[in-house]
Amino acid sequence: MFEFDLIQRYFRQQPVQRNDVRLGIGDDAAIVTPAENLELVIAADVLNEGIHFPVATDAAAIGHKALAVNLSDMAAMGAEPAWFTMTLSIPDSNASWLDAFCSGLYQLAAKYNVQLIGGDTVQGPLSISVQIAGYVTPGAALTRSGARVGDGIYVTGVLGDSAAALACINGEVDIDGQAIQGLQVKLDYPEPCVCAGQKLAGVATAAIDISDGLLADLGHILQQSNVGAHINIDAIPVSDNFRTYIAAGGDFNRALVFGDDYELCFTSPLAEPEIVELLKHCDCGVTLVGSITSGTGLKVTDSQGNVVNIDDIGFEHFAE
Amino acid sequence: MFEFDLIQRYFRQQPVQRNDVRLGIGDDAAIVTPAENLELVIAADVLNEGIHFPVATDAAAIGHKALAVNLSDMAAMGAEPAWFTMTLSIPDSNASWLDAFCSGLYQLAAKYNVQLIGGDTVQGPLSISVQIAGYVTPGAALTRSGARVGDGIYVTGVLGDSAAALACINGEVDIDGQAIQGLQVKLDYPEPCVCAGQKLAGVATAAIDISDGLLADLGHILQQSNVGAHINIDAIPVSDNFRTYIAAGGDFNRALVFGDDYELCFTSPLAEPEIVELLKHCDCGVTLVGSITSGTGLKVTDSQGNVVNIDDIGFEHFAE
Repeated sequence: MFEFDLIQRYFRQQPVQRNDVRLGIGDDAAIVTPAENLELVIAADVLNEGIHFPVATDAAAIGHKALAVNLSDMAAMGAEPAWFTMTLSIPDSNASWLDAFCSGLYQLAAKYNVQLIGGDTVQGPLSISVQIAGYVTPGAALTRSGARVGDGIYVTGVLGDSAAALACINGEVDIDGQAIQGLQVKLDYPEPCVCAGQKLAGVATAAIDISDGLLADLGHILQQSNVGAHINIDAIPVSDNFRTYIAAGGDFNRALVFGDDYELCFTSPLAEPEIVELLKHCDCGVTLVGSITSGTGLKVTDSQGNVVNIDDIGFEHFAE
Repeated sequence: MFEFDLIQRYFRQQPVQRNDVRLGIGDDAAIVTPAENLELVIAADVLNEGIHFPVATDAAAIGHKALAVNLSDMAAMGAEPAWFTMTLSIPDSNASWLDAFCSGLYQLAAKYNVQLIGGDTVQGPLSISVQIAGYVTPGAALTRSGARVGDGIYVTGVLGDSAAALACINGEVDIDGQAIQGLQVKLDYPEPCVCAGQKLAGVATAAIDISDGLLADLGHILQQSNVGAHINIDAIPVSDNFRTYIAAGGDFNRALVFGDDYELCFTSPLAEPEIVELLKHCDCGVTLVGSITSGTGLKVTDSQGNVVNIDDIGFEHFAE
């Protein structure tokens, strides 16, 4: 039995009540009163079971991640998230699954004061589509097209944990349970860089969130900014758990080409200490990993200047 | 081979360019500058293959309908549609399918000057999720909660064509091909009542679009307005093709309980001639089918006053 009424009840209990939402869930549409003198930033991302998360993933993690990847788009634009809609396909109306899903979703929604204002539920293969809107000062949004020659290339947090988690789950690499657990938290509960994104609005020259891997996502900045880049592979920030994975035979290149990191990659003419100072209260860390160059190529070297062939590290889709 | 680049190209070619969209498809999110002194109305609906449209449906019809059902929500709020995002799950990247899908989608988008500003594409079972935003004068949006005792209950257009089309496609009723074709146009290419919705903003006391059947959708108005209703079953507007379906043994009650009509049901204290005059340029027609009563019940009679038992007509979900 597919219980629409049951499901609807879950989505009417959402925890956030914003002043700019005049009518929330329960009519043909929501009504919002956008704040004056601000621009709206709008994104939509969908997660399908078996593609964006493994089939056995906890429902709470799915709820978290469905919103997190959209908050990550807000972060990449430097926006303050405001409200979202969700269309949900689920195979059945399992109450304990819905409880857990909503707990993951709503905990993150409450953290960022973002209100669920509408959507749709349908029976079908598990798929969650979220559409989100946020505010940004006019002209201050971070796009992919503003990187300039000489800018530093920065990444927040650490890269590769999600990729390493999947390699361990799939049995490709064998490490101890605690390290796997640490990696899996990043895979299941990515933390969107909303704080860093907002601090960088009007400061960074370009930004993107790392969903497809650093090299692919940086590639979008290079293409849209019509510039090249030099990346120091030895500067790529990784976690202790990722080093454990490497020591057990894991592939370092996954930190560059796999994705599912939801960290930010951004460019700025500011020096590293200034960027570190700017983001010091954001709890994410930030690392200078390279610089923007003239031309349109991407060059990867190690700290000694030895060139690393990007074809050798599994990177295929730089050229569009 | 699943070609993301191919697919992305289809969605960058969308035909509408609005002045309130500062950055469209191609970054982490779109940037819009909402018109001042207006409220935004936001809705999201998803269509899954085999549930919202039959498996053999033309791609152009799927593209049309995915946007039409969302435009119908804008109509039900009295809003002027502005922009939309779309997340698309498709099993493969078939170019001719995408061509047809986009032609149906974009033809309707161009008609209502609504711009596709972003979204996401993923491989998976066919599913199309659209989120739409539109404008309304502050306070003039049509909700479900304003119906008052004595108001007339109106519906636009004709009801039941989609239901009859499905009955014929499924072989339940046998009528001639031309009549089936006429019915199927309504099933595949529903025309959202955007014109009527905008004319009714600030005039109707309550409105809803008929997606689940007149009785179920009117039920939402009654519940949220805390009123009852009397419907004259003989006044329900149906098409000549629907009458052909009835003459061949079809079930009239499908016009009341099936849905997929995407007409508007609304309430207003204005007399029928005034409503007809108001909507005369909207190309949809409008019919008075009943009136709002005190109490909370829904009473259906024929023109002679004989009571029709709503349980007998397959209506189950009036009470929430």
